[in-house]
Amino acid sequence: MTGGEGAASDQPVVLVSHRGPVQFGRDGDERIQERGGGGLVTALSGLIPDLDHAVWVCAGITDEDKVVVAENDGGSFDAGDSDSPVRLRMVVVDDEVHDQFYGIVANPLLWFIQHQLWDTKVAPELTRREHDAFLDGYAEVNRSFADAVVEEVEACGGGATVMVQDYHFYLLPELVRSRCPEVFLHHFVHIPWPSSDAWRVLPPSMREAIFTGMLGNDVVAFHTKRSARNFVLGCQELLGLPVDLGATSVTVGDRTVVARAYPISIDTEDFEARAASAPVAEHRDALESTRRDHLLLRVDRTDPSKNIVRGFRAFDLLLRDHPELHGQVQFLALLQPSRQDVEEYADYTALIRRVVADINLEHGTADWQPIDLRLEEDLDLAVAAYTLFDVLVVNAVVDGMNLVAKEAVLVNRRDGVLALSENTGAHEELGELAVTLYPFDLQQQADALHEAITMPLDERRRRREAAAAHVRSHDVSAWFDAQLDDIADLRGSPST
Amino acid sequence: MTGGEGAASDQPVVLVSHRGPVQFGRDGDERIQERGGGGLVTALSGLIPDLDHAVWVCAGITDEDKVVVAENDGGSFDAGDSDSPVRLRMVVVDDEVHDQFYGIVANPLLWFIQHQLWDTKVAPELTRREHDAFLDGYAEVNRSFADAVVEEVEACGGGATVMVQDYHFYLLPELVRSRCPEVFLHHFVHIPWPSSDAWRVLPPSMREAIFTGMLGNDVVAFHTKRSARNFVLGCQELLGLPVDLGATSVTVGDRTVVARAYPISIDTEDFEARAASAPVAEHRDALESTRRDHLLLRVDRTDPSKNIVRGFRAFDLLLRDHPELHGQVQFLALLQPSRQDVEEYADYTALIRRVVADINLEHGTADWQPIDLRLEEDLDLAVAAYTLFDVLVVNAVVDGMNLVAKEAVLVNRRDGVLALSENTGAHEELGELAVTLYPFDLQQQADALHEAITMPLDERRRRREAAAAHVRSHDVSAWFDAQLDDIADLRGSPST
Repeated sequence: MTGGEGAASDQPVVLVSHRGPVQFGRDGDERIQERGGGGLVTALSGLIPDLDHAVWVCAGITDEDKVVVAENDGGSFDAGDSDSPVRLRMVVVDDEVHDQFYGIVANPLLWFIQHQLWDTKVAPELTRREHDAFLDGYAEVNRSFADAVVEEVEACGGGATVMVQDYHFYLLPELVRSRCPEVFLHHFVHIPWPSSDAWRVLPPSMREAIFTGMLGNDVVAFHTKRSARNFVLGCQELLGLPVDLGATSVTVGDRTVVARAYPISIDTEDFEARAASAPVAEHRDALESTRRDHLLLRVDRTDPSKNIVRGFRAFDLLLRDHPELHGQVQFLALLQPSRQDVEEYADYTALIRRVVADINLEHGTADWQPIDLRLEEDLDLAVAAYTLFDVLVVNAVVDGMNLVAKEAVLVNRRDGVLALSENTGAHEELGELAVTLYPFDLQQQADALHEAITMPLDERRRRREAAAAHVRSHDVSAWFDAQLDDIADLRGSPST
Repeated sequence: MTGGEGAASDQPVVLVSHRGPVQFGRDGDERIQERGGGGLVTALSGLIPDLDHAVWVCAGITDEDKVVVAENDGGSFDAGDSDSPVRLRMVVVDDEVHDQFYGIVANPLLWFIQHQLWDTKVAPELTRREHDAFLDGYAEVNRSFADAVVEEVEACGGGATVMVQDYHFYLLPELVRSRCPEVFLHHFVHIPWPSSDAWRVLPPSMREAIFTGMLGNDVVAFHTKRSARNFVLGCQELLGLPVDLGATSVTVGDRTVVARAYPISIDTEDFEARAASAPVAEHRDALESTRRDHLLLRVDRTDPSKNIVRGFRAFDLLLRDHPELHGQVQFLALLQPSRQDVEEYADYTALIRRVVADINLEHGTADWQPIDLRLEEDLDLAVAAYTLFDVLVVNAVVDGMNLVAKEAVLVNRRDGVLALSENTGAHEELGELAVTLYPFDLQQQADALHEAITMPLDERRRRREAAAAHVRSHDVSAWFDAQLDDIADLRGSPST
């Protein structure tokens, strides 16, 4: 499927992510393996088997994970099944340390900074709790993972390619580099990298550790050019390092660190097969039986970065400006509740419910509810809705990529229009085929939704087909291959 | 006092600001002149009389202003007194237009964007109200002022230097340039210029108008290099223009627009005279009679950008970490209520009162209240407190300059320590002589306040004297002269 024949795979690969492809559990007396959660892990799980030699370093979280780790004396072991075998190295982290790492630093502190969600008038307020969590949680987990990575690198001769995933491991690259000088470090950040203004929410003790840690890499990869540029500008502004904006690179001593953009994508064959499946067809029939002339759709986690409330308020303006649409349009919102143990998320979900109730009360009739809100997770239902929408609403405040946009245009059967926030990674690729949404501007969003609803059919078709073709020709394998190719090039070049 | 002899003043100067140096009123049958409000206007009022030929374009706001404007057929006229004569051109703006311009667009929309105060999860929500206010209010006022500026420029031969002040007139420069090709346009922005991430709160229809309007200038001036850099980066990111980061300049067609930093200052002679005045002495005696060992002081408007709540919470941590300071330290907070008709400001003031009450309840005793909160405006009291503080607390989220820091170190008599946010303009000049505060980090602020309180006296003295010497040698005249000198240089150079 992917670059198993490429030069990059001549070197062993050590993959590092917080969640792994497998977690262990028990069913009575029997040990069972469950697939790890999340789209990223799923995507990588499909790609890793094609590498000649790879080991995946991830967290051991369940009780049974810890048993398996002990059985293997903390070392790596084979897991997965014959379809997707994988060599795993699980790092067991003390529960309290993990809570500090994950529940205080990674989420919400880093997530909110990188999605620009802090209400800086009053939040955050960093106290000893956050300082301790950074040192005893985040840094400690990075050290534990670095130890495991170093062992795995050394076990395969010291020259491995290490591919680190995401915002959980900003300190790890420098820790690995200092002990493995022959290693090649590639780090993919799947969430947006904001400007220095946002990073200044952290004191230098944290932000400099993060930037310095990341500069242990050879390549820092993002979904967008905007993030790559912000990273390089931040190195100049916060660390005073010389940079080359044209090459988006940073000079650190005698090394050059490059920042690159590789927009992630989906497994198009797999996704189209799912869209053609029986469970999806059942949901589609049910949705078809109640559909109105114009189906607006959004599919999101209830994360404030998704901008769900403003999306509904824009829809409210649309209904006010266009009474002719009453009864003709319905906004189906499939929202998966997310992180409800975090206050900001629970508050946001409550606000969503309040706003939907108000709009349905204001405009609804005995046989028409303008917004059909479903707070649940059902991927088959979502895929069924993808095939049926007339307008897909993606108005995120900011979003690393937004794969919903790619999934939905791929399988849609009604020449649906993509209404896409300028601040999504997907907009760098698909913006010209979409109706652009400016996420803070309700009136603009209302006007854009109207433009999408009333767009001539041939124009809708041209755009949807071009968007689907783009996604097909830029699928997740192409995304991974592009990274492996660049790694091979850079490993071969004398400058790194 | 200033560059009346400089080359720049060979050309007439047209000064543009929202508030002018004078406003007219009535006392019975008699017309009276009152000095306009605000530190900026006061500073400029002291500088303008030294120019050979200057006219000041400002808003005519009071009823009597409008009478005076009508008496002069809308043209310019002499005003002020023999000490500070000024030629005025007042622009009368319809009340409703002015409300849209000032109360919706300039404050809070632009102010909040530039101080990064929006809670982007939920605010702002731009609707037709804001779009209309931008077009019918902000743009309309800019057009009216541009008309007046063009008339004044033409009246003096077309080659005047136009010096525009602040965030009320971002559209004006391009409007003037298009009609007066011989003019030299210099625009001072007194509030921070943030990164593009913050400007993307506005849709392109507004943000592009703002950047394009500003690029009508020859010089765009700020208090800090950080703002100048952000402006240039924004031109590249939002308009796609070629820039030179080293020279902080932007190429627009065949023109070059330079962004420069000129940190504003105070009239040191005037301020030291006030500090020696009888009313200040009276306040000082009263403060001295009740002082504790360590006097912490802050003097601010109740603007969320000033970060008053986090400052108190940091003080709370200080008291928790250091019980030995109980009864020994007092935090005097002189806070001038600001914009209480704006919801965010009223909420913020209420929160300040709540937090102070909680802290005084928690730590206070029968004869010691840790925080002495005074919600009033009394400049003599503030100056008296400047002379007495041990630690001045300036922990702003972000602040264009913060002149309180300069005023206070100049007249302090106790070798007081400046505790200064890294995000103030003053920090670029005085940061090395201050204890730096990281505005989102309560623990760091508490630790820094403790460091300031316990700093050895000779170190305190060395820093305070060096800071005062810096302010004396970089006073407001030097600030203005530096701009006039650069204008003369740039007018003489062939590239502009």
